[in-house]
Amino acid sequence: MKSYRKELTFHLPKRIGFVNVTAEVEAAVRESGVAEGLCLVNPMHITASVFVNDDERGLLADFERFFEALVPHEPVRSWRHNDTGEENADAHVKRQLMGREAVLAITAGRLDLGPWEQVFYGEWDGRRPKRVLVKIIGE
Amino acid sequence: MKSYRKELTFHLPKRIGFVNVTAEVEAAVRESGVAEGLCLVNPMHITASVFVNDDERGLLADFERFFEALVPHEPVRSWRHNDTGEENADAHVKRQLMGREAVLAITAGRLDLGPWEQVFYGEWDGRRPKRVLVKIIGE
Amino acid sequence: MKSYRKELTFHLPKRIGFVNVTAEVEAAVRESGVAEGLCLVNPMHITASVFVNDDERGLLADFERFFEALVPHEPVRSWRHNDTGEENADAHVKRQLMGREAVLAITAGRLDLGPWEQVFYGEWDGRRPKRVLVKIIGE
Repeated sequence: MKSYRKELTFHLPKRIGFVNVTAEVEAAVRESGVAEGLCLVNPMHITASVFVNDDERGLLADFERFFEALVPHEPVRSWRHNDTGEENADAHVKRQLMGREAVLAITAGRLDLGPWEQVFYGEWDGRRPKRVLVKIIGE
Repeated sequence: MKSYRKELTFHLPKRIGFVNVTAEVEAAVRESGVAEGLCLVNPMHITASVFVNDDERGLLADFERFFEALVPHEPVRSWRHNDTGEENADAHVKRQLMGREAVLAITAGRLDLGPWEQVFYGEWDGRRPKRVLVKIIGE
Repeated sequence: MKSYRKELTFHLPKRIGFVNVTAEVEAAVRESGVAEGLCLVNPMHITASVFVNDDERGLLADFERFFEALVPHEPVRSWRHNDTGEENADAHVKRQLMGREAVLAITAGRLDLGPWEQVFYGEWDGRRPKRVLVKIIGE
């Protein structure tokens, strides 16, 4: 069995944002030398998501609007987590709803994705660098 | 290490629907010859979910009603994704909330599920054929 | 390839509650002897979640308040699942939104978690014992 580990780092300029990371995950799969296996991709932070959806600008705007309406950042004092001095309770909740991680199949040395499946890093509390873990096992 | 890959196809007659696919995933596990391992099940489409819950008709009706109320299909013009000519923005959001994939343990050649755990294909934008990937690794 | 399986059991005194299970999952990783691999953690029940977030008391209170407001337990008769005599339809829905499972990387014989990532058992319909499966594969 082979295994491979890689960290990616993202530093988004705003509180909320989405980055297509498919090419970087594909690169990790190539570097791993794994032909058949599984690839786990997860943020190492708890106010961010990794998810699979469509790389369409309108949809990403819909995601931001929908999750901000459902889990409002303001008023920050309405969240008990923010009693600690943080202002990101909403980001912890949004990340649960969007999801933490993606587990992807590797087949014949490539990510085994449908034609429209793209892997995204989802940031809910940006303006600082954050790490994403890619862990690959297989043979 | 062994690996096995299979595609299942579903064509649901309505926009929203849920199909118990446990038996088909179990069949793939048997075909794989894997006794101890992991089984990833995910749609290859971005307006569908794979999830684990109870096969009870009332609950499936609750899921449809709850997610439709939370993420309404209408008015379709309220979603920026639908500016592309699509009418399925809500389906992309619903799939995020319900989840993309299930990762299941394989023990002694069987899916290692609790007594009520059943694996479902969740369709949010049906009336066309869609593929589900089953990827198994182990030994 | 090595594999390891362990069950944990939790019996929470109230309907809703969250338990940090990171140390117990770490113990399972040590017992497995796996240095590089993947660790799946999932409840074997369909009204519970396993998720990764921050072990901060205010945040856990926010989770309970947010999910109860979004998916109300009462009135129990508003859910079709409860026509069966159950009163836990909301718990089935909450578990979908929070998520079923966590897949965690194992690197150098340890859970490969970011500094604030903690693994939680999330109970949505407690007052009875429930099992959590830990399945580890790797080498």
